[in-house]
Amino acid sequence: MKGGPFAIEVRVYYQDTDAGGVVFHAQYLAFMERARTELLNQAGIDLSRLSDERRVMFMVHELSARFHQPAGLNDLVSVSAEVVKMGRASVVFRQRVERGRALLVEAEVTLAVVDRVRMRPARMPEELKKALERT
Amino acid sequence: MKGGPFAIEVRVYYQDTDAGGVVFHAQYLAFMERARTELLNQAGIDLSRLSDERRVMFMVHELSARFHQPAGLNDLVSVSAEVVKMGRASVVFRQRVERGRALLVEAEVTLAVVDRVRMRPARMPEELKKALERT
Amino acid sequence: MKGGPFAIEVRVYYQDTDAGGVVFHAQYLAFMERARTELLNQAGIDLSRLSDERRVMFMVHELSARFHQPAGLNDLVSVSAEVVKMGRASVVFRQRVERGRALLVEAEVTLAVVDRVRMRPARMPEELKKALERT
Amino acid sequence: MKGGPFAIEVRVYYQDTDAGGVVFHAQYLAFMERARTELLNQAGIDLSRLSDERRVMFMVHELSARFHQPAGLNDLVSVSAEVVKMGRASVVFRQRVERGRALLVEAEVTLAVVDRVRMRPARMPEELKKALERT
Repeated sequence: MKGGPFAIEVRVYYQDTDAGGVVFHAQYLAFMERARTELLNQAGIDLSRLSDERRVMFMVHELSARFHQPAGLNDLVSVSAEVVKMGRASVVFRQRVERGRALLVEAEVTLAVVDRVRMRPARMPEELKKALERT
Repeated sequence: MKGGPFAIEVRVYYQDTDAGGVVFHAQYLAFMERARTELLNQAGIDLSRLSDERRVMFMVHELSARFHQPAGLNDLVSVSAEVVKMGRASVVFRQRVERGRALLVEAEVTLAVVDRVRMRPARMPEELKKALERT
Repeated sequence: MKGGPFAIEVRVYYQDTDAGGVVFHAQYLAFMERARTELLNQAGIDLSRLSDERRVMFMVHELSARFHQPAGLNDLVSVSAEVVKMGRASVVFRQRVERGRALLVEAEVTLAVVDRVRMRPARMPEELKKALERT
Repeated sequence: MKGGPFAIEVRVYYQDTDAGGVVFHAQYLAFMERARTELLNQAGIDLSRLSDERRVMFMVHELSARFHQPAGLNDLVSVSAEVVKMGRASVVFRQRVERGRALLVEAEVTLAVVDRVRMRPARMPEELKKALERT
């Protein structure tokens, strides 16, 4: 890894593909959610506990993505997640899906911290902020 | 309809298919959930309200399915739902996916009524029982 | 409709939601694919036939989306699709998910025409171009 | 593992859950497809190559499942796959989803070998049969 961003490996199964023979575009965004969650897990943040104890959750607020090359059935791809900006109530991730050295998809995803009962923006809990800064 | 079971029409989109060129098998079960929900809606039962007010929800407890012929991209299929058995805490649906006269998939799905906080079997609310009997 | 963009109605089922209690973010993009496909169907373009006969398909090349408010279980939302730009090998859609007058999600989605065997950009077939211009 | 069936670990992400707060029922079947595919990969069978070179693919023909306990957000579950019966054109898997010692879901899934052009039952290629027998 040596200084590279956090990444997970994801295998492409039939369930991820569509009749075009390659991964369905929205599924890359699901792959990216997996990488973000594992980044948080590794930083000691359990989204499930956060929701139960702090009554907050992340919601995707904004995203932009570019699809350069498709991933196919049984490919093993690397999905990275990197915090590039933090606000009082939001965090921006840069994410990439790669197969070997080929960049398949890149995206910027802004998550907002939301009070899960009132479904409104909330301030980021200090522990979450610190954990994200350490990533 | 004339005495036939309740049914909805479902269009097959890319998102429903896989690299085999046809609908991904588990997606037919998602189609069937749509038909059950619309059956309940038509019977005046809103699953969302049921969860909020009565603290109960349905969970699939058992299912068996046979896949006879596949549905392809842009097909318009009919998905039916019919109550065939009711217990104190469960209900059994018979469901079919058809394209014209061709039977594509058939299934039997048993739902259990579950207390959504304790995640344990619960007795079926009387209003739910009555509504299901009317379908 | 009266001059408004093409739109379809989509019901939110359990399958569309996540443990946050609302629609999973990538699922709004799937809703948008449904609207684009129905727009094409209405314009006389069958994606399945296009793939078989012309050997081309659409692939999402770029997208940006903003999520303003979430849709919840059993909501009935309107999903619109509107062609806002056409190139020789691509088309840009503006899309919205609305519940009544509330704007929930808006997106711009660029599709590229792709040769489905070589998986490379291809020129848009004339019939497709004309049909899109008529929408 | 010591004699136990082949199994993979699967993390539960938001994308796998629904508004009930637990994994959407059809998603367990998707988890099971991942386990079957990895079993085949380990046995040296690449479904993608099989489709390209032999013109055959597997299709789910029959399945029965029982859902005992739900898996929740961020759970790490084990999903097993075991060949329990082989025919000339089909194979039956027994599969389990477990969290620690708790059995969450069990299923029996029958796959048919299908000619992917004609979409009709086909004889199982000898290399596939041998590989499955070795698992």
